[in-house]
Amino acid sequence: MKKKSSAKKTKKVPVILITNDDSLTAPGIRHLIEAVKDLGRVVVVAPDKPQSGMGHAITIGFPLRLHKVHLMDGVESWSCSGTPVDCVKLAVDKILHQKPDICLSGINHGANHSINVIYSGTMSAAIEASIENIPSIGFSLMDYSLEADFTAAKKYARLIVEQVLSKKADKHLCLNVNIPKGDVELIKGVKVSRQAYAKYEEDFEERKDPSGKKYYWLTGIFQNLEKSKDTDVWALENNFVSVVPVQYDLTNHLLKTKLEKDYTWKS
Amino acid sequence: MKKKSSAKKTKKVPVILITNDDSLTAPGIRHLIEAVKDLGRVVVVAPDKPQSGMGHAITIGFPLRLHKVHLMDGVESWSCSGTPVDCVKLAVDKILHQKPDICLSGINHGANHSINVIYSGTMSAAIEASIENIPSIGFSLMDYSLEADFTAAKKYARLIVEQVLSKKADKHLCLNVNIPKGDVELIKGVKVSRQAYAKYEEDFEERKDPSGKKYYWLTGIFQNLEKSKDTDVWALENNFVSVVPVQYDLTNHLLKTKLEKDYTWKS
Repeated sequence: MKKKSSAKKTKKVPVILITNDDSLTAPGIRHLIEAVKDLGRVVVVAPDKPQSGMGHAITIGFPLRLHKVHLMDGVESWSCSGTPVDCVKLAVDKILHQKPDICLSGINHGANHSINVIYSGTMSAAIEASIENIPSIGFSLMDYSLEADFTAAKKYARLIVEQVLSKKADKHLCLNVNIPKGDVELIKGVKVSRQAYAKYEEDFEERKDPSGKKYYWLTGIFQNLEKSKDTDVWALENNFVSVVPVQYDLTNHLLKTKLEKDYTWKS
Repeated sequence: MKKKSSAKKTKKVPVILITNDDSLTAPGIRHLIEAVKDLGRVVVVAPDKPQSGMGHAITIGFPLRLHKVHLMDGVESWSCSGTPVDCVKLAVDKILHQKPDICLSGINHGANHSINVIYSGTMSAAIEASIENIPSIGFSLMDYSLEADFTAAKKYARLIVEQVLSKKADKHLCLNVNIPKGDVELIKGVKVSRQAYAKYEEDFEERKDPSGKKYYWLTGIFQNLEKSKDTDVWALENNFVSVVPVQYDLTNHLLKTKLEKDYTWKS
């Protein structure tokens, strides 16, 4: 009888999978672990080298490695030789042997608002989890510096994770959270937003190697192409934390209707 | 006077940028060039090595190289050391010095229907072009073999490119076209579809290297999780060419409304 009652009282501890794209050695992932580690059983599986800009890449042509590492006392941590998406797949299949209750990615050093979501390794890990019915959140701080102040990022990461864990989350929930740079006191709150149409005006820098052959570095100037107040770029420019719910269904339904009506698909 | 009238008669020749993710040496890209080369001025910029599964990856940590190569008589061709997305960016900025009228990617050796669109290097090149206001089409043949029969793929690629070039295309038009394997005569036509919710049940194969250390190969079993007749998977299973219009706005608008209503974002 006693045993039964004690079992009843035991609250299920959520399993929290944490990954990122800046690798295990980036300060951002430590800050994320610290922000949430008392909310459940945290397991870390993150890339062994920086994977920024990897989009939704998976490793097909090479085998993958996993190594157990010590990152922080009391937190099971693994280093993975693959991409952020590989980390999520391997964590579920070979480390957890189950789906975690939530998957968190980040905290990224640098913004992932607007079109950045599509190039982002941080967000690709979160999107991969959501495809697998694991609610997920990617966090990015708008500060590239290794010495960035993560106070605000940690505060809002915890707040948002608590909210999602406290509800029966949508099974494909995936949030793209960006936190403005600067003093936590200056942040006005959280704003649920949509992805702005903003992009980079590319400009490859051309150089010559010691033997005179050309090579190119990708550079670009960020351009925000809309001023609407419901976008993530607006929220961040106005010192809100932006939360954009993200989906993996890429179908353009409006264009689908138009194609069915206006195009002739016969030879 | 004569000069003016001759200028009037000159029809603008469309610039057609062609890329892929299987690299310049794959038969698929040659078939695509052959299918459309008399429809405009074709310029090829494709990866120098296979880039399957690269998702929307871009190269940040390394510089990129471009080399002029001979692929086919009368077709300007370049080999690029980067990802399919890098190829599109470099082609516009450093080779064409203008936006092409259309960007074609493929013909991929293997399917890119349903969730594959998100991992696909072929489709990432097409999506990148559409972000840059360049109408684009990715083509994939459901046959991995190097000796695959591209007759049907070539026929429908040409038909679809002609259709898109003949209209004032939507500025962000991006089509994900998949062609069933098999005899061209058996194909029933083109079906505009939506992305099916289908995914892979992952199963990493565990092996040991000669020194006894574990490594993993990504494998997986494809699972179609819906039977609806408006999906790309249904179209292909029923011998239609599937055409899915694709977008790069990942905002989940339904979930956005729910988040605004049901969640409290305050500490």
